[in-house]
Amino acid sequence: VASDFENGVSLGEMAEADVLARIFPRLPESTSTLLGPGDDAAVVAAPDGRFVVTTDMMVEGPDFRREFSSAEDIGFKIAAVNLADVAAMGATPTALVVALGAPAETDVAVLESIADGLRLACESLAPSCGVVGGDLSSAPVLTLSVTAFGDLAGREPLTRSGARPGDVIAVAGELGAAGIGLEMLFAAEGPDEFSQVGQNPLTRAQLRPHPPIALGVTAAVTGATAAMDVSDGLVLDASRIAKASGVSMVFDELGIAQCAAQIAVEALKQGFSDDEIVEHVLYSGESHALLTTFPIDQVLPLGFTPIGTVIAQAAEPVYFGNRPLPIRGWNPFSY
Amino acid sequence: VASDFENGVSLGEMAEADVLARIFPRLPESTSTLLGPGDDAAVVAAPDGRFVVTTDMMVEGPDFRREFSSAEDIGFKIAAVNLADVAAMGATPTALVVALGAPAETDVAVLESIADGLRLACESLAPSCGVVGGDLSSAPVLTLSVTAFGDLAGREPLTRSGARPGDVIAVAGELGAAGIGLEMLFAAEGPDEFSQVGQNPLTRAQLRPHPPIALGVTAAVTGATAAMDVSDGLVLDASRIAKASGVSMVFDELGIAQCAAQIAVEALKQGFSDDEIVEHVLYSGESHALLTTFPIDQVLPLGFTPIGTVIAQAAEPVYFGNRPLPIRGWNPFSY
Repeated sequence: VASDFENGVSLGEMAEADVLARIFPRLPESTSTLLGPGDDAAVVAAPDGRFVVTTDMMVEGPDFRREFSSAEDIGFKIAAVNLADVAAMGATPTALVVALGAPAETDVAVLESIADGLRLACESLAPSCGVVGGDLSSAPVLTLSVTAFGDLAGREPLTRSGARPGDVIAVAGELGAAGIGLEMLFAAEGPDEFSQVGQNPLTRAQLRPHPPIALGVTAAVTGATAAMDVSDGLVLDASRIAKASGVSMVFDELGIAQCAAQIAVEALKQGFSDDEIVEHVLYSGESHALLTTFPIDQVLPLGFTPIGTVIAQAAEPVYFGNRPLPIRGWNPFSY
Repeated sequence: VASDFENGVSLGEMAEADVLARIFPRLPESTSTLLGPGDDAAVVAAPDGRFVVTTDMMVEGPDFRREFSSAEDIGFKIAAVNLADVAAMGATPTALVVALGAPAETDVAVLESIADGLRLACESLAPSCGVVGGDLSSAPVLTLSVTAFGDLAGREPLTRSGARPGDVIAVAGELGAAGIGLEMLFAAEGPDEFSQVGQNPLTRAQLRPHPPIALGVTAAVTGATAAMDVSDGLVLDASRIAKASGVSMVFDELGIAQCAAQIAVEALKQGFSDDEIVEHVLYSGESHALLTTFPIDQVLPLGFTPIGTVIAQAAEPVYFGNRPLPIRGWNPFSY
């Protein structure tokens, strides 16, 4: 999989201006840029007098590994996960700033490939969004920190606190694929197996996620009452909506089965059982699907699958039918 | 100096929500927050339909060391350097987002002290500015990435490209102190010496810089033609204004002597010679003074010292009297 990490000249051998000159032409351009790179700060349009902002750091080791991810994958993923957070607010992504730390011996081609990944992610997921600024630092391992901006076009933001009893719970995008993909990568041994496994659609969901960015605005304009990006697992993230909204969330068998069906053909082929697939749908992280709630009388927009119902606050925050689901999921310091 | 790194419970022993519950109350609040932490993204006011944005990453090792800096110092400094970039655009800082990477064994008290430093910096340098969002990650060393926002209140941003022949070059804030302070820290041996040296005003300028944030707006409203934050050394940064504006910059003896005089009493006491002090004024980084140009007929606002004159583009970008100054300064990958 990884192939763009070694090439020619290292960062430590080049002047910063020359490094930037190699990266800048590959970065995506934002249509919201009023003043771009070249000064101490950029100036970005915020047409309705507000902007949405989110930030996410990815560190080599805990968040990605060079055996699994190409540098282009890493750039793609850090953009995608930030865009997903903007989309979950019901906003259109407008711009990114990117801080990058790397060892001095890092090949400048690695930074070029990361820039390519940032560009490909913006082109395919959020076409008017681009990079408006950044920073280069020395760091012991490759470290990316992206801050993403979005425009609400005069709408109220979608939050975690708007779910109401009676609402339908609906999800857009895949659940569980990224988690199964990660297990497949950990099970692979040696460069040949990595390379083969790395082409599988489930590992691609882990290494280069394609969250349904445009459906964030769709959810907002069609009356969604709450939304969030599923980054730490469906159950844990649903419990956060439950807590913020003062409700409980009940998933139904059919809805979860439909989510499982989206990944089952490939997952069964890889030797995962039906139970394991459902477990991944419910609990595995980095899905970056869009979890929403809609009023019961709203026809769900194309791309959303109903997976349950919001009820008045009950003893537990999340149920699968009648059964309370244990709340567990991802912690950044216990990977 | 450093004292707040060891205490009690580590990040790896706590749930993320509990870590955040300990940090949030210590963070500064922004008066521009429309929707704060608790959702996938924050919503920030941008009253004039634009926002200024800059980002800066600081990594343990190349950018700070626990022997020299307390955790509170580190939080203070990362806020201050980002605020200085916003100020250099002629904008008022409104908000910060903070991504923090740390080893799992890091004491949660370290994060509390970093939060204290962020708060103290905002309180003393930019009172309406606060933290509106963030991210926690696992990282091999302490890594901070801050993105800062500013409001231009309808004005055009100050850039590096507006300097015109005949303009006065003026600086606000100290030049050279942070560089001398860093030399003093490197020369110190053992905890006792660090602790003593760490109280000196020159080392404080390195560890906990106080850039003249409010003077960024002052420069803008009094007609400055160009501005930038001096982060990589006066000569290198002046050469950037020269290049962007298509001019050359001439420093005069009196102006540079006045800058040197600001730090001379303390620096001479520490054994630095007059020549070494001038060298630091001209070349040492992390000053975070505000370098500006003003029309010749503009009375300089309080806090600005005239240090030279902008001339039509000459053979070299920067001169000290008649003598061209070599352009050299900081490179992030050759520390």
